[in-house]
Amino acid sequence: MKKFIDLRGKPGSEWFLGNMFRKSGKSAGATPGDMVFVGERKIEAPVATVAVYNETELSVKSVKDMDEDILSASGSARTWVNVVGLHDIAFVSGVGKKFNLHPLVLEDIVNTNQRPKIVDYGDYVFIVAKSLRVDGASGASCAEQVCIVLGDSFVLSFVENESGALDPIRERMKNPEGRIRKRGADYLAYAILDAVVDQYFSVLEIIGEKIEAVEETLEAGFSGSRFHITLRDLRRETLLVRRAVWPMRDVLGGLQKSEIKLVGESTGMYLRDAHDHVVQTIETVEIYREMLSSINDLYQTAVSNRMSEIMKVLTAIATIFIPLTFVAGVYGMNFKYMPELEWRWSYPAVMAFMGAAAVYMVVYFKLKKWF
Amino acid sequence: MKKFIDLRGKPGSEWFLGNMFRKSGKSAGATPGDMVFVGERKIEAPVATVAVYNETELSVKSVKDMDEDILSASGSARTWVNVVGLHDIAFVSGVGKKFNLHPLVLEDIVNTNQRPKIVDYGDYVFIVAKSLRVDGASGASCAEQVCIVLGDSFVLSFVENESGALDPIRERMKNPEGRIRKRGADYLAYAILDAVVDQYFSVLEIIGEKIEAVEETLEAGFSGSRFHITLRDLRRETLLVRRAVWPMRDVLGGLQKSEIKLVGESTGMYLRDAHDHVVQTIETVEIYREMLSSINDLYQTAVSNRMSEIMKVLTAIATIFIPLTFVAGVYGMNFKYMPELEWRWSYPAVMAFMGAAAVYMVVYFKLKKWF
Amino acid sequence: MKKFIDLRGKPGSEWFLGNMFRKSGKSAGATPGDMVFVGERKIEAPVATVAVYNETELSVKSVKDMDEDILSASGSARTWVNVVGLHDIAFVSGVGKKFNLHPLVLEDIVNTNQRPKIVDYGDYVFIVAKSLRVDGASGASCAEQVCIVLGDSFVLSFVENESGALDPIRERMKNPEGRIRKRGADYLAYAILDAVVDQYFSVLEIIGEKIEAVEETLEAGFSGSRFHITLRDLRRETLLVRRAVWPMRDVLGGLQKSEIKLVGESTGMYLRDAHDHVVQTIETVEIYREMLSSINDLYQTAVSNRMSEIMKVLTAIATIFIPLTFVAGVYGMNFKYMPELEWRWSYPAVMAFMGAAAVYMVVYFKLKKWF
Amino acid sequence: MKKFIDLRGKPGSEWFLGNMFRKSGKSAGATPGDMVFVGERKIEAPVATVAVYNETELSVKSVKDMDEDILSASGSARTWVNVVGLHDIAFVSGVGKKFNLHPLVLEDIVNTNQRPKIVDYGDYVFIVAKSLRVDGASGASCAEQVCIVLGDSFVLSFVENESGALDPIRERMKNPEGRIRKRGADYLAYAILDAVVDQYFSVLEIIGEKIEAVEETLEAGFSGSRFHITLRDLRRETLLVRRAVWPMRDVLGGLQKSEIKLVGESTGMYLRDAHDHVVQTIETVEIYREMLSSINDLYQTAVSNRMSEIMKVLTAIATIFIPLTFVAGVYGMNFKYMPELEWRWSYPAVMAFMGAAAVYMVVYFKLKKWF
Amino acid sequence: MKKFIDLRGKPGSEWFLGNMFRKSGKSAGATPGDMVFVGERKIEAPVATVAVYNETELSVKSVKDMDEDILSASGSARTWVNVVGLHDIAFVSGVGKKFNLHPLVLEDIVNTNQRPKIVDYGDYVFIVAKSLRVDGASGASCAEQVCIVLGDSFVLSFVENESGALDPIRERMKNPEGRIRKRGADYLAYAILDAVVDQYFSVLEIIGEKIEAVEETLEAGFSGSRFHITLRDLRRETLLVRRAVWPMRDVLGGLQKSEIKLVGESTGMYLRDAHDHVVQTIETVEIYREMLSSINDLYQTAVSNRMSEIMKVLTAIATIFIPLTFVAGVYGMNFKYMPELEWRWSYPAVMAFMGAAAVYMVVYFKLKKWF
Repeated sequence: MKKFIDLRGKPGSEWFLGNMFRKSGKSAGATPGDMVFVGERKIEAPVATVAVYNETELSVKSVKDMDEDILSASGSARTWVNVVGLHDIAFVSGVGKKFNLHPLVLEDIVNTNQRPKIVDYGDYVFIVAKSLRVDGASGASCAEQVCIVLGDSFVLSFVENESGALDPIRERMKNPEGRIRKRGADYLAYAILDAVVDQYFSVLEIIGEKIEAVEETLEAGFSGSRFHITLRDLRRETLLVRRAVWPMRDVLGGLQKSEIKLVGESTGMYLRDAHDHVVQTIETVEIYREMLSSINDLYQTAVSNRMSEIMKVLTAIATIFIPLTFVAGVYGMNFKYMPELEWRWSYPAVMAFMGAAAVYMVVYFKLKKWF
Repeated sequence: MKKFIDLRGKPGSEWFLGNMFRKSGKSAGATPGDMVFVGERKIEAPVATVAVYNETELSVKSVKDMDEDILSASGSARTWVNVVGLHDIAFVSGVGKKFNLHPLVLEDIVNTNQRPKIVDYGDYVFIVAKSLRVDGASGASCAEQVCIVLGDSFVLSFVENESGALDPIRERMKNPEGRIRKRGADYLAYAILDAVVDQYFSVLEIIGEKIEAVEETLEAGFSGSRFHITLRDLRRETLLVRRAVWPMRDVLGGLQKSEIKLVGESTGMYLRDAHDHVVQTIETVEIYREMLSSINDLYQTAVSNRMSEIMKVLTAIATIFIPLTFVAGVYGMNFKYMPELEWRWSYPAVMAFMGAAAVYMVVYFKLKKWF
Repeated sequence: MKKFIDLRGKPGSEWFLGNMFRKSGKSAGATPGDMVFVGERKIEAPVATVAVYNETELSVKSVKDMDEDILSASGSARTWVNVVGLHDIAFVSGVGKKFNLHPLVLEDIVNTNQRPKIVDYGDYVFIVAKSLRVDGASGASCAEQVCIVLGDSFVLSFVENESGALDPIRERMKNPEGRIRKRGADYLAYAILDAVVDQYFSVLEIIGEKIEAVEETLEAGFSGSRFHITLRDLRRETLLVRRAVWPMRDVLGGLQKSEIKLVGESTGMYLRDAHDHVVQTIETVEIYREMLSSINDLYQTAVSNRMSEIMKVLTAIATIFIPLTFVAGVYGMNFKYMPELEWRWSYPAVMAFMGAAAVYMVVYFKLKKWF
Repeated sequence: MKKFIDLRGKPGSEWFLGNMFRKSGKSAGATPGDMVFVGERKIEAPVATVAVYNETELSVKSVKDMDEDILSASGSARTWVNVVGLHDIAFVSGVGKKFNLHPLVLEDIVNTNQRPKIVDYGDYVFIVAKSLRVDGASGASCAEQVCIVLGDSFVLSFVENESGALDPIRERMKNPEGRIRKRGADYLAYAILDAVVDQYFSVLEIIGEKIEAVEETLEAGFSGSRFHITLRDLRRETLLVRRAVWPMRDVLGGLQKSEIKLVGESTGMYLRDAHDHVVQTIETVEIYREMLSSINDLYQTAVSNRMSEIMKVLTAIATIFIPLTFVAGVYGMNFKYMPELEWRWSYPAVMAFMGAAAVYMVVYFKLKKWF
Repeated sequence: MKKFIDLRGKPGSEWFLGNMFRKSGKSAGATPGDMVFVGERKIEAPVATVAVYNETELSVKSVKDMDEDILSASGSARTWVNVVGLHDIAFVSGVGKKFNLHPLVLEDIVNTNQRPKIVDYGDYVFIVAKSLRVDGASGASCAEQVCIVLGDSFVLSFVENESGALDPIRERMKNPEGRIRKRGADYLAYAILDAVVDQYFSVLEIIGEKIEAVEETLEAGFSGSRFHITLRDLRRETLLVRRAVWPMRDVLGGLQKSEIKLVGESTGMYLRDAHDHVVQTIETVEIYREMLSSINDLYQTAVSNRMSEIMKVLTAIATIFIPLTFVAGVYGMNFKYMPELEWRWSYPAVMAFMGAAAVYMVVYFKLKKWF
């Protein structure tokens, strides 16, 4: 899985700037349908976990060699093949051959820079989704690609590395009373998508906390010269999340359409629920964007106000002392005939005058609220 | 009911930042359809008020235990069950079982962070709405979730705590000549939605008064260092209201669609009226947003103008006195051969010159309108 | 009729802030269909002018009591009832009963804060429109509600007070050769709407003149501290007009739809013409908004430029005199051993040097175009 | 034809501010269908040029009196009547009667402030288009209205004054091998529209050159106090062009629709080509708007940067000389007991110290790139 | 091919400002369908490469004279004619005659300022696409027009000069097992479009690197007076790319529509893949635009912050030394009766006081974080 964290410490910028348009890593003009892996190899060898289940039985095994017979299920059983690790083209290609997948599907599975989408191939539906998680080390959000192939009696899922997002599904599958065991493959596909969408909420919560922290910093007072960099990074992180989440709406909306025969009506109700969750997520992201934009405005205002404060101090000081200095300068002149210089009370009088002028100015500025 | 007022005194920010994406409080990947209450427990025990009515009869009773027989109504009667308090999952679940509700409906009822929506389950229509009210203590707007289940001869309504919004409906129900008694369950559902939408107007009125107050402050003169915080809070409050109101348009629009068989044609006319009210509300919210944005512009201009004023004062003072100080400095030099120093009228002449220069500058600045 | 002019002298703000969401003045939760008048009572008693006409005959009478027989027209005649004054609920209600209007229609007629809309009730079409006029005293634009009920052989129109907008229609009706007399009730309804739309142009013309005046002020030079307030008021006035005009497009578009049986095909052609006028109005309003936004930009630039000018003056003065003052200060020091002080030509030399430096700086600033 | 050049020398502002909403110059409430000319009378008497042509024959004559028989064409011939000059209502009205035009069509023809549109009257199609040209004297763009009535075997075109835009069509018509002669009236209408659209490109080219010139001025350095006025004028000119061009897309799109029977399929292909040109024009206008907006940003930045430069100079000068002046001031004090004053090398030492400090500051500012 | 690099060194501005609206170089009003070449002549003579292929055979020859028999292919074979060089109108026109192309198609082929589009002529589909490449010398992006005519058994492609984009297709065609050889002409047209779209990714990657470089410059510190020019150029380059890429979505979407009979269903799947790539490209371009806009904000903030820094320094210096200078000025006055002047410890006391004041100010500013 491609890490979204920039090596320079900025979240997501590498993904945006460097990788997103490396469509497939292959040179422009290569044959369409060729499989080229573009992510980072994270695990040693790919593993396929094959679960064959029906209402009464469940068998799970790990498969490392696609030549094994993973389709030995009896008539009513459904099969879930979960492939972790996509850098081994041959392995993925083996799965593809077993399930008779179109070359373009295989190309999309190993090219982990896809946009979420849904394509109906008649015998099966191909779904590209993006899961989100927060990177433990950098605290930045990153996206991972989850591909799902939903057939009549099988579900294939492909992820680059094991992130634990699908563990609860495995747990629920062990319960013979659970809906997953009772319903068809379409419900399992929904369950995977629902798990993916559920993660959006926790990622958004963390971004929300960051936004709140930034806002508190700003309200507490002036915020240092790196503040606008932090703000920019948050904006970009939101942009990244938005890019992953928006197309998911169409994916979940597309799955509910009546043209897709593989999805039953009762599962449609659940898909609608997941669709609502995605819409809620999108709304939150848009609100975040608006909040960040308003924080930026606030920051600009704070900078302006601060500048104004500085100018006030300068102006007050200059306005008080420059005239006084002039007066002092006048009586520092060396003219021979300056009668005041000889008078007994000149000096105290001038000092008193200057003091009075200074007090007047200070009061004046106080009234104008410059201090 | 989750309070929307932030503990730090900013309206609505907690709801935005902390809660809105805690989809259901359950860990990501939990079984869909599980009920998890996410609000704040506000009342001791949930109460269901059951009203059974037809054109001639009306019986109302409070039910605290769902095992009681709340469906003992005769053929032509309609039943309205109003549940206040959602933290008791078992209670809500009991209502759900009595009326045969889908697990997803129950999940949505107790998860009070839903977006307003409408789902047609065939036998009944499930409606999520958001009511708005102004919190007495903080003066900030807050949203509460109102769920309505409209069946053929029953209406279920679920709210988290008693806010009095539905009292007028209860009063009108007592009048045997009222439309509520004469018409079917769909009219009752409309009446509840209309009461919810009516409250929007009073909340908007209060926000409008706040905006007006802010604007008057700004026009009256400079507005203190917290002004932009106040403005931000108002913007956020408007954002909150907008988020609650916008989807209501689709809800009311959806109810009028001919696919929904439970809503009769004569009630459709009333729904259209409520729909118009929501559109009017949305228009008002959008105008508020535009006004707040224009107030922000005005504020920026005021800050700029004020800065300009300060600079003018500084420049005027500096431009008058710095050259004069220079002249005084010249005649403060200690050169042996400075013939002017010896002259009789040098001092008055220099003073006169400096005075003339100062007067010239002041007149010049007056003409340029710098004072 | 509700005045749109703010008591504090700002156009329209009261309407925006205080009134627009007082849906009906009734307390939230009141029975839908109840009539509550929300405007300002402007005339003593409501008057209904009833015109019964066909191609050959025309009779006009004023009716103050709805019990009179206003529907005594023979078969082929059309009836136009124009009601001025809506504060007398009973009077309006009487008209409603005579023509068998739905309670919601009556509620909307007396609630003068409606958004323009069109509702087809089958037997009649209910149209809410907004007319615009310029208040003579304040020069601000204000909107008035015009409700039209178009039946098979009658047209009802309801306005709050007599503004003269419908006078030309009355004149044209007297001409037995005119189209109004020859065509059906739908043409009369069109004529009223066309008169309403025609007024938009004159209001827009006046706003256009205001915009032009503001722009000239700005171009002529600096524009005083109230300038941005004026600009804001103009923006708000445009917002008000926009709010009245935009929905009229849908109203006129809706009337042309084939579902509405009461509007004949030949009248549709005229409605299309009025529709084009509304679109032209909307376009003008949008251009005004863009112009006001560009004037605002211009104003900001003017403020910035002016600030820049002030800074230039300050910098030039300071840059010339501060170094010179330093030089003077040096020769004002009281060291015993400062040989220059004794020299014969020191003073003239220093003065010459200082003069040369000043000239150099002035030339330098001239070249940099700072003066 | 109404001139779009403002009398005060600003392009187009009069059109925007004064004229565009004078729908028809008639008082509000006048009878729809009344013809009122609203432009400026530019030529003495209106002239209609009548061309009757088929594949083999072509006759052209000028007609000044509509009583002449302009429809004497034989069966297969097509007639093109081009009317120049619209201030003579009677003349236009005469044409209208000959070709049986609807009163609304005639009203629109003489009201030259129409928005481009297309109306299908069954027997004929009425098209309002806007041609653009650059005014020779002021160099500003201006729009002229071109109305086309396309009938089964005739085309009527109405322009306010002779601008030469249709000359090439007349030339091409003389060629018996040309498409105009071989094809029907629909192709002639297309040819006129194509000539109108072709002119857009040359007007846009000139605006493009102006934008480029403005941009070069800005890049070359500071741009004078009138710069933002120039920029504003360009923006407005673009707005004017946009307003003329945008609706043309719908006009050309509407002509291609299959409902319009008067346009043959083979002409549809050509209309699609003209439609593409209009889309290209719109795209260019939008890019111009974006460029002007970016030039404005650039200008703001230049003003900001310049301000920054000025402040740097001021700060550098003040920071160097104010401390030095203070030092000089200290040794200008008249205390009796200031031992340094008596020392032999005090003066050179102080001067050296001050020089060193100045050099240090200069080097410091150089490093900070303030000079 | 028209170079998009501006002669003044700014990418793309010439294309935007000067050329894009020179629709065809012909004078306004010229006959539609006339061919006028508008690009720059880049190669000596046009060359057509004719490839005739089926599953078993492939023959390639270069043709310089259109009189040669390029259509000698047997029944099942497909023909690909690739024309490089469009300035020779006669040559292109010859190809057009051989394949019976509509005059408007030929006009569009040689007019290289077309917007990407797709037109279905029944017998063939005409496609205008824009390929992007990075100019080696200037590093700026430039667009080239690629026209494709897809017939039943032939594909014509027209490019202005040889850029190597189609080389991989030629290579793949040599492989008798490749899809190109096995599938129909529609697949070849797809392969050309796919090669064009593939290039977008590499161009975007280079722009992405430029954006990243600009961002790093900005973050590293202040960025010189040309920074906003660089930013503007990047913005414009993105605008150029956007203009080329956006309409490609409609082109690829249009090709998949079922109305177009020449495109088979199995090729539709591949077109959908290319369509996804274009959508991904558009998304990237939009993100670039947002990033550039955010960089611009960042730059403005940096300028503001820097200004603020400068003001702080000025204010600090002035605030410390102006009062001190005043004190020094006081004791430089020449009054006869100033008792302090005579005291023994006056001078050290005053110096100590001034030192203390200075220290106090410095500490104060340190605490306020002004240094």
